[in-house]
Amino acid sequence: MSNQEFVVLGQDGPGGCCPGLLTAPLAEDQAVELAKVFKALGDPVRLRLLSMIASRAGGEVCVCDLTPAFDLSQPTISHHLKLLREAGLIASERRGTWVYYRLLPEMTDRLAAILTRPAGEPLPEPTEALS
Amino acid sequence: MSNQEFVVLGQDGPGGCCPGLLTAPLAEDQAVELAKVFKALGDPVRLRLLSMIASRAGGEVCVCDLTPAFDLSQPTISHHLKLLREAGLIASERRGTWVYYRLLPEMTDRLAAILTRPAGEPLPEPTEALS
Repeated sequence: MSNQEFVVLGQDGPGGCCPGLLTAPLAEDQAVELAKVFKALGDPVRLRLLSMIASRAGGEVCVCDLTPAFDLSQPTISHHLKLLREAGLIASERRGTWVYYRLLPEMTDRLAAILTRPAGEPLPEPTEALS
Repeated sequence: MSNQEFVVLGQDGPGGCCPGLLTAPLAEDQAVELAKVFKALGDPVRLRLLSMIASRAGGEVCVCDLTPAFDLSQPTISHHLKLLREAGLIASERRGTWVYYRLLPEMTDRLAAILTRPAGEPLPEPTEALS
């Protein structure tokens, strides 16, 4: 907690590499952008889809292999996939009849980074209040 | 309010500490639990509140210091704080007139962990298909 003068985030432009959710108050526009991504993750079907795509050996999955895992119609699955895609979490490519999905690890890396506490700086306990 | 309900992602059960969103398909019940936390983060006001609480020198913040940063009523702010608390992201304690909030870093640590790619194991590229 040394230079904690509520610096504004996003040194790397909109959505910057690591807005640092835990290290400084988030600017309003960054909060809006980031909330979209978390909202996309805030649904069990989309989380399961993302984990199925991310963990697939080979790195990509045909939508035809995703749909059977759910009691949902293909249009519903496609809608969830669209929200994940719009959030920048996955990419898609049509080949022939089917659409194939793959993880965009840059976005999950970014989320992991902003949720990670600064190295060597455990968050202070209330009893260690500096001011 | 120190004893949180702290529903979580079964650190000792199937799926272990970190259900591993990126390493294996998420079980349905884990996806439901995890989605609740991401949903709590899926709102710009809640993200800003969380970042204000997490980055505060001293580790805790009076609700009276949070409300002025927003064009929202105190009941609205309190509602957002309640959702963050129910998600296990923050804890609260009433002292006198005011309620004080602090981050529960176990939850953000857990989210960071499940969004982190396995060490030394870059996700496969489509061209590196194993099967």
